[in-house]
Amino acid sequence: MTLVDIASVPDRILAPGFRARLMHGASLTIMRVQIDAGSHLPRHQHPHEQATTILSGRLQLIVGETLYDMGPGMTVFIPGGSPHQAFAPVATEALDVFTPVREDYR
Amino acid sequence: MTLVDIASVPDRILAPGFRARLMHGASLTIMRVQIDAGSHLPRHQHPHEQATTILSGRLQLIVGETLYDMGPGMTVFIPGGSPHQAFAPVATEALDVFTPVREDYR
Repeated sequence: MTLVDIASVPDRILAPGFRARLMHGASLTIMRVQIDAGSHLPRHQHPHEQATTILSGRLQLIVGETLYDMGPGMTVFIPGGSPHQAFAPVATEALDVFTPVREDYR
Repeated sequence: MTLVDIASVPDRILAPGFRARLMHGASLTIMRVQIDAGSHLPRHQHPHEQATTILSGRLQLIVGETLYDMGPGMTVFIPGGSPHQAFAPVATEALDVFTPVREDYR
């Protein structure tokens, strides 16, 4: 069992304006992301399946060629290996989940 | 890709006072849970790894013999097959993640 208080997790800067805090289990990684208004996460991909849930704000996520304009309470599942990028027009908080664990971020 | 608006997901009653909304990907299930103050989820177990994050309120989670008194921003990882139960002393919102998919809830 692992209990983590996010207050004890250091920020990891994914891109300018994207501050992430990561927590890892056996097969799951949970990532809370605070995003400054007007920030862009460049197109990237990884073999892990990802689920992104918007907690507050707004996120424009492009997966492949499809734009998802997401607000609070919306969740998108991104298959492993799918190129994606994100833009936050306003200050935004998201919760990302990955499986398997993001060993590259451990 | 799957985009889900939680507003479109029907409630599933896990126990009295535990209302869940579930979303499924390929290997991930995301479950938002609204819990009424004073509600108890009886001891149970499942083979899936689970990560529980408290969004608001307070949750007293017993995993095996260990009590976790959790507030906002805390995440616990529960290994597959571990018996656990929960009690919310106040109105609480949590986000649970499972891998693999909870086919029993699809």
